[in-house]
Amino acid sequence: MPKDKLTIVKVGGKVVENHDELNQLLDSFARIKGAKMLVHGGGALAGKMLQRLGIEPQMHQGRRITDDATLEVVTMVYGGLVNKQIVAQLQARGVNAIGLTGADLNCILAHKRPVKDIDYGYAGDVDAVNAKALKALLKEGAVPVLAPLTHDQKGQLLNTNADTIAGQAAAAMSHYFKVRLIFGFEKNGVLSDLNDENSVIPLIRESEMEQLTQTGTVADGMLPKLKNCFDALHSGVQKVQIRKATAIGDKVLFTRIKL
Amino acid sequence: MPKDKLTIVKVGGKVVENHDELNQLLDSFARIKGAKMLVHGGGALAGKMLQRLGIEPQMHQGRRITDDATLEVVTMVYGGLVNKQIVAQLQARGVNAIGLTGADLNCILAHKRPVKDIDYGYAGDVDAVNAKALKALLKEGAVPVLAPLTHDQKGQLLNTNADTIAGQAAAAMSHYFKVRLIFGFEKNGVLSDLNDENSVIPLIRESEMEQLTQTGTVADGMLPKLKNCFDALHSGVQKVQIRKATAIGDKVLFTRIKL
Repeated sequence: MPKDKLTIVKVGGKVVENHDELNQLLDSFARIKGAKMLVHGGGALAGKMLQRLGIEPQMHQGRRITDDATLEVVTMVYGGLVNKQIVAQLQARGVNAIGLTGADLNCILAHKRPVKDIDYGYAGDVDAVNAKALKALLKEGAVPVLAPLTHDQKGQLLNTNADTIAGQAAAAMSHYFKVRLIFGFEKNGVLSDLNDENSVIPLIRESEMEQLTQTGTVADGMLPKLKNCFDALHSGVQKVQIRKATAIGDKVLFTRIKL
Repeated sequence: MPKDKLTIVKVGGKVVENHDELNQLLDSFARIKGAKMLVHGGGALAGKMLQRLGIEPQMHQGRRITDDATLEVVTMVYGGLVNKQIVAQLQARGVNAIGLTGADLNCILAHKRPVKDIDYGYAGDVDAVNAKALKALLKEGAVPVLAPLTHDQKGQLLNTNADTIAGQAAAAMSHYFKVRLIFGFEKNGVLSDLNDENSVIPLIRESEMEQLTQTGTVADGMLPKLKNCFDALHSGVQKVQIRKATAIGDKVLFTRIKL
């Protein structure tokens, strides 16, 4: 039996935080036909809530260290505020959304990142995505909305990067579906000139990465994002795209990632 | 075909807030055989978070008025912090929990309470429980954990009393199941003497309510709770109990509510 199509969209914290952009994104997401899932971040909102509560953010080279107080805040903000607002907004658009963390239905099992030089606290590295449970929900016509939280099945919630969750979920779901993975963010795609939104690179192949890195065309946060993309493709994901979150379904320029 | 049994347990905010009591409750809940659901409160924790954020709680005759800032906090605390911690703790106990608000899968549809003398803000009065969606989850072996939040299907989340949600869910699920509804709280049951934990009234019938109210045996918060119980029984719920949350499954004294 040929596999059905599944679209998995990941959207970052900056889009989630902006009321108008989030609405545009959800309108666009609602128009996607067939089985679909949404994975969201929320880092910027969590940062604001930490500030309001007077909790000093703990960072190491741009990565958040999740201590007890921070875990409480990200559980509230990712699992509650952001996730449930998205779910309610999708329901209003006729999308039968269901919000999930990795703990719900044991969707995403992880382990606390081992301490080497740095203790990242309650940061979770993914062990397994429960593709069977997600498939059962999709079969009922539900649209999973995944928050960037996992658990260790010993009662501990863990903070996990949303890009990683999207990539791992896409890889696991490829067992049952032809998966298209879309990383939506605030720009039009991977740009050759960061100051020019029209400089979208239409296609990036894995073999070109060395050159793109050496010339500095691809740098900083885009490097782990692209690594996620190639990992997903190596794991059987059929299509990977990096594009503007607010125009996911539109006929606009975007970046295709291929092996 | 005879109906299967379903146990619905509601636990209040005071139990949820206490780490040891919550663990005892979850141990006890995990031991309940067959299909089951948990409905939780969290008012006390929401109150603390409002305080930490410097938001003045708005109350009218003991009922919370849910303004914008309060809705944001209860969405975080009920839908995120409390719900996901319970789900993770149940998963650790081998219970395949899934946390839900009324927005998820359109589980509980409500409308904003109309303004008469008092504007309760984003308080939701329940219109319909999606028993079919909950049944589908139960059939897959999942254990729904309901937070006291609903939605209006127009994108608005609403704050809804957990006792009401438990009662309405029990009534709706009676269409498919023989439902036992348990209201778990910090006391051993309905007490004839509030200062004596051994004074549990073993059985309360609807016909006795007038006398119990006139003598002051039943007063304050227990009145709407008992009204919920009788409403549930009138709607087809088979058994209703009020008992100690930390000993739900144990052979101890408790209060049976009957018509």
